[in-house]
Amino acid sequence: MDLAAQTGAKAKNGNKNGKKANGGKSARDAYYDKISKLDMAPLWVVLKNIIPDEPKTVCAPAIWHFKDVKPLVAEAGSVISAEEATRRVLVLENPKLRGQSRITNSLYAGLQLILPGEVAPPHRHSPAAIRFILDGEGAYTQVDGEKTIMRPGDFVLTPSGTIHDHGNESKKSMIWLDVLDVPTVNFFETCFYEHFDYKRQNTRRDDGDSLVRFGSGVLPDGSPHRNSPIVNYPYAKMRPILERLHEADDVDPVHGARFRYANPLTGGPVMPTMGAHLALLPKNFKGKSYQATDSTIFVCVEGEGVTKVGDTTLEWGPRDVFVAPSWVKYAHRAGKESVLFSISDRPAQEALGLWREKA
Amino acid sequence: MDLAAQTGAKAKNGNKNGKKANGGKSARDAYYDKISKLDMAPLWVVLKNIIPDEPKTVCAPAIWHFKDVKPLVAEAGSVISAEEATRRVLVLENPKLRGQSRITNSLYAGLQLILPGEVAPPHRHSPAAIRFILDGEGAYTQVDGEKTIMRPGDFVLTPSGTIHDHGNESKKSMIWLDVLDVPTVNFFETCFYEHFDYKRQNTRRDDGDSLVRFGSGVLPDGSPHRNSPIVNYPYAKMRPILERLHEADDVDPVHGARFRYANPLTGGPVMPTMGAHLALLPKNFKGKSYQATDSTIFVCVEGEGVTKVGDTTLEWGPRDVFVAPSWVKYAHRAGKESVLFSISDRPAQEALGLWREKA
Amino acid sequence: MDLAAQTGAKAKNGNKNGKKANGGKSARDAYYDKISKLDMAPLWVVLKNIIPDEPKTVCAPAIWHFKDVKPLVAEAGSVISAEEATRRVLVLENPKLRGQSRITNSLYAGLQLILPGEVAPPHRHSPAAIRFILDGEGAYTQVDGEKTIMRPGDFVLTPSGTIHDHGNESKKSMIWLDVLDVPTVNFFETCFYEHFDYKRQNTRRDDGDSLVRFGSGVLPDGSPHRNSPIVNYPYAKMRPILERLHEADDVDPVHGARFRYANPLTGGPVMPTMGAHLALLPKNFKGKSYQATDSTIFVCVEGEGVTKVGDTTLEWGPRDVFVAPSWVKYAHRAGKESVLFSISDRPAQEALGLWREKA
Amino acid sequence: MDLAAQTGAKAKNGNKNGKKANGGKSARDAYYDKISKLDMAPLWVVLKNIIPDEPKTVCAPAIWHFKDVKPLVAEAGSVISAEEATRRVLVLENPKLRGQSRITNSLYAGLQLILPGEVAPPHRHSPAAIRFILDGEGAYTQVDGEKTIMRPGDFVLTPSGTIHDHGNESKKSMIWLDVLDVPTVNFFETCFYEHFDYKRQNTRRDDGDSLVRFGSGVLPDGSPHRNSPIVNYPYAKMRPILERLHEADDVDPVHGARFRYANPLTGGPVMPTMGAHLALLPKNFKGKSYQATDSTIFVCVEGEGVTKVGDTTLEWGPRDVFVAPSWVKYAHRAGKESVLFSISDRPAQEALGLWREKA
Repeated sequence: MDLAAQTGAKAKNGNKNGKKANGGKSARDAYYDKISKLDMAPLWVVLKNIIPDEPKTVCAPAIWHFKDVKPLVAEAGSVISAEEATRRVLVLENPKLRGQSRITNSLYAGLQLILPGEVAPPHRHSPAAIRFILDGEGAYTQVDGEKTIMRPGDFVLTPSGTIHDHGNESKKSMIWLDVLDVPTVNFFETCFYEHFDYKRQNTRRDDGDSLVRFGSGVLPDGSPHRNSPIVNYPYAKMRPILERLHEADDVDPVHGARFRYANPLTGGPVMPTMGAHLALLPKNFKGKSYQATDSTIFVCVEGEGVTKVGDTTLEWGPRDVFVAPSWVKYAHRAGKESVLFSISDRPAQEALGLWREKA
Repeated sequence: MDLAAQTGAKAKNGNKNGKKANGGKSARDAYYDKISKLDMAPLWVVLKNIIPDEPKTVCAPAIWHFKDVKPLVAEAGSVISAEEATRRVLVLENPKLRGQSRITNSLYAGLQLILPGEVAPPHRHSPAAIRFILDGEGAYTQVDGEKTIMRPGDFVLTPSGTIHDHGNESKKSMIWLDVLDVPTVNFFETCFYEHFDYKRQNTRRDDGDSLVRFGSGVLPDGSPHRNSPIVNYPYAKMRPILERLHEADDVDPVHGARFRYANPLTGGPVMPTMGAHLALLPKNFKGKSYQATDSTIFVCVEGEGVTKVGDTTLEWGPRDVFVAPSWVKYAHRAGKESVLFSISDRPAQEALGLWREKA
Repeated sequence: MDLAAQTGAKAKNGNKNGKKANGGKSARDAYYDKISKLDMAPLWVVLKNIIPDEPKTVCAPAIWHFKDVKPLVAEAGSVISAEEATRRVLVLENPKLRGQSRITNSLYAGLQLILPGEVAPPHRHSPAAIRFILDGEGAYTQVDGEKTIMRPGDFVLTPSGTIHDHGNESKKSMIWLDVLDVPTVNFFETCFYEHFDYKRQNTRRDDGDSLVRFGSGVLPDGSPHRNSPIVNYPYAKMRPILERLHEADDVDPVHGARFRYANPLTGGPVMPTMGAHLALLPKNFKGKSYQATDSTIFVCVEGEGVTKVGDTTLEWGPRDVFVAPSWVKYAHRAGKESVLFSISDRPAQEALGLWREKA
Repeated sequence: MDLAAQTGAKAKNGNKNGKKANGGKSARDAYYDKISKLDMAPLWVVLKNIIPDEPKTVCAPAIWHFKDVKPLVAEAGSVISAEEATRRVLVLENPKLRGQSRITNSLYAGLQLILPGEVAPPHRHSPAAIRFILDGEGAYTQVDGEKTIMRPGDFVLTPSGTIHDHGNESKKSMIWLDVLDVPTVNFFETCFYEHFDYKRQNTRRDDGDSLVRFGSGVLPDGSPHRNSPIVNYPYAKMRPILERLHEADDVDPVHGARFRYANPLTGGPVMPTMGAHLALLPKNFKGKSYQATDSTIFVCVEGEGVTKVGDTTLEWGPRDVFVAPSWVKYAHRAGKESVLFSISDRPAQEALGLWREKA
């Protein structure tokens, strides 16, 4: 949280409430100067700012239209080599958080481009990452020995500490959305990073292996783990589930026909810091207004529609990425049947006893 | 996290790596300008900053000597009335986080003064708070109907959402250390606050009631809860436990004879965002070097000693408050038998799968 | 446990150890008579029996060959009507537990026959049930509104308290294996039963609905539950998972290529009292010897083989049901590739801290 | 469960429902004979017996008056030496379960006598045990190195697998109530036992050490465990808690002012198979009627009163032990202020999803 504004508040309050001392300085200001030398500050000056009546987000509602950003992402391919960039990514910065490499206060997002023939060599880090595939088809991500070929709408996990690398053995460039919990990891000052010198890790498991083993209602014997072992939740298998929910009329008035990506080892979220949903908004859906404390990143997978976020109206179509900030009311509308992917820090907030919603 | 430095990094890198275009601007810079208009930024410029090889804390080791700060806290009594201040507190600001109302990146701390006859009326908020009593004796904190009289060394909880108020019916002023998870709650943008108009809540339970009911090895029937129901862990009852650990030679080479304040309903930490320990350092204790990802706030309760934090040597005595930042090595030494209270965000880090230590 | 033998033991010990009193009765026996009037008995007489050095099962290894039992099950169709029987089932009684309606000490098993056109109307009870389909195809089980058509190898759950009914709208009679935790429920004296007057419950969900919603790596929002919500784990979807494990050479030296049927809401067993596995024994599999405290019921789904259980050799082929009792060593051998389903009370034993294995 | 009655039921039903065949045997009986040879039996004959509409306990309400049993327990001291007996215990057998060494269907109870100067040497076993001290004072139980001196009303744990031994270094004989989960452990066929050759284990911890370390609201760092680490919950520390509950008018209309002995590492029951409570019935308490599926063993610690169990009225005074069987309604009445200890298998039933109550 940027608390710089508090300094201003302090000065103003100091002048207003204190009595002027010699030279125009109030007694309070003199006192504030004195305690400041010992790294102390008066709480009463900032109390309202640091403990607001309800969340006052530092984020703005925002949207990145794919038709606008795609040419720029493509251009990155000529601006910098994959090798030089390590990962060739354009960071999506929330308009109110420019220079901070975040799309919401706790999450990082970026658009990654990988050209035919390129590889992004293995590394691992404490930040957890997801990929949500936007454009192109046929590049791979490899996580702990499973190499998965990615297609649009696929939801790919690289949990905290897993070795992962990418490559594109297809003939088309690919673009996907990366979301990482980097700001959260850095807020807690817990980031570790390790690079490996080889170009790609060995493939030890078939594509889809973890989905079959862990995402079919059965499990190996063994222990629960806080991260889902499923590498890829492919859109081709997930889309029909939405269809079924829709046909069964299992449609939430706020969220549409929606499921939560799950960790089969616990039934909980896929990772402790981030959680994701996929939702189908039926034709002519007019969602009810909703607010929750988790700032949410949405991606339109199919269809088109409008989301009113506070006073801002965001019009979205395929591959657009948009944000509804913490505790700002939002409501979706869709003329066509549409599919929205969403991801937020809700699991972290729930783990800490902080999450709240109001429908 | 203060990412302002990244902007500088960006510019520098841009100049270094790009080719100059007309008018002195490199092609890369031109590209960066273009993407910036759509709220995008190049990852490769900031990558090393936002995903460091290991935690680079934004905090400094720091200490507040009670003998220096007590007169200033006392002076606050004349600078502002309890009524005007709501809570009369001097915030302890980490020297590297001035203006941000935090002692570590995720925690707030302050020294609260309450004069004889004063009351601080009830409110509640999502930030969780603890009090650790430093000086004076006889003021009360009331939490959910239990009014507890506080004495030096007492550890008092006001978990998220509990209604609490304070008052001083004794004849001496009292000073205690407040620690709150305000920065964490605000990082996740989940702060709610509610004020009540009455001067104090009704007392419905005896002093010590919750300790007897929940902190004696027995429990009422019912459900676990993420917050400890114990209002006060009094020093008079806790100190002998240290003695016993010491006598049984149960002394950790890093931490001394130490216990963890616990939530009896789960065996876990007292609250999901903060956890505390009390440790006895035996006479002539020379602790081994240690590092962990949780920035830790220490309070000396008894004795005196020296803690080396990175290259900084902090000399502490009774009622001094000091900080060892994330992943900076520290080691305690004490000539006299000493007691240290400590508190950090370790439970939050553990819940999110982020905590790491190295002995 | 049948402790009748202890009475004998008591008398014998009593005679051996006590001194004869007048009339041939020892002083101890006289004492035993005296305490017996107050419903007391000497522990030292039975101690070795009730606390043995290691489990001494009351069960025998046993097998029911399908070719032998099928004609008798079929004959039941003419002996009693479905209507009169409520459920037309032949109970498989462990040879050492005749008259006790149990196949192992804690589990009940039976072969259920349902003829074309018959229905078994709805009821519910605290005992949990599973069906494992042996013969025929096309009858249904309906659980909480989902009507599932059953095929050989399907594993169907009717957890504690769920309303369920069966019917056969196909043209062939069907036989399946029922396994219930009836002895466990009765041991704890916790059995409740409720009959409903209507012939079948309304179908509210498509066949396979719960598998799609809960057994695909995704979940609805909501709470964990101790019972799996999946009604049918169909063999057609489970068999290929074994194939994949086998191809990946993920073959346990005792159990073969094996998975555990799981509760997707928790990652735990499908129900708290019973757990099941499906295993592929590769061609020429020679399993290592193994013992565990859970008495296990096996069903051969495909192939043929031999299981040595203690000193007993059981030869099995398709649809045969056999039992390996608690803590008796067993080892599988199969010439052909074979598939074994197994079910036991291991989850109950684990929940109570009692389960132990030795490979 | 004794299912012997079913055989009778079978015969009767068989005769009633079947048509007579030649020689006086019905067709059904002939069929039953035929299937019996293959270890099968008709479910429809026993269905009502094995799945009753609600629990039909095999236990009787029962009471052991201390004034009657004490002389007999004392006499055991001359009947058998501690050495020969291993443990000198009179088993309390439920009147309906004679010869089965159980006081309820799932629990064993006995009165143990230890004379001055005697020792009962170390052993360990999978059955978990508790001692509840009735008479005398000064003998010890030692569990995992902590030697605790026992006094009336003390509640002492020897969880599954812990090494324990007893001895009496006082000048008075002592009697306590043992309760073990032996029938449960044997029902699941999971009993292991190990004897040690030395006379007593080394004492490594002070009396009360575990209570201080784990039962004071604080804990060491480390992992949860399913068994409570507290060796002795002494009456001297527990009785005042009842007093406080009573004074706070925290009196349940069924159970009185009551607490649950807890495992501080989890907040759950002291052991997975057994759970205990201590309750104060205020003067002139007239408890409401209650039923639950756990058969409960009560011990009167102080006072006197009457418990109506079904149609049976049990009058109890100090040190009397009595039983309220599963799902039989009971209600307590006490003229004097009284204290009741109680223990049952409720934690096991809850872990298996089987426990139910009705107030």
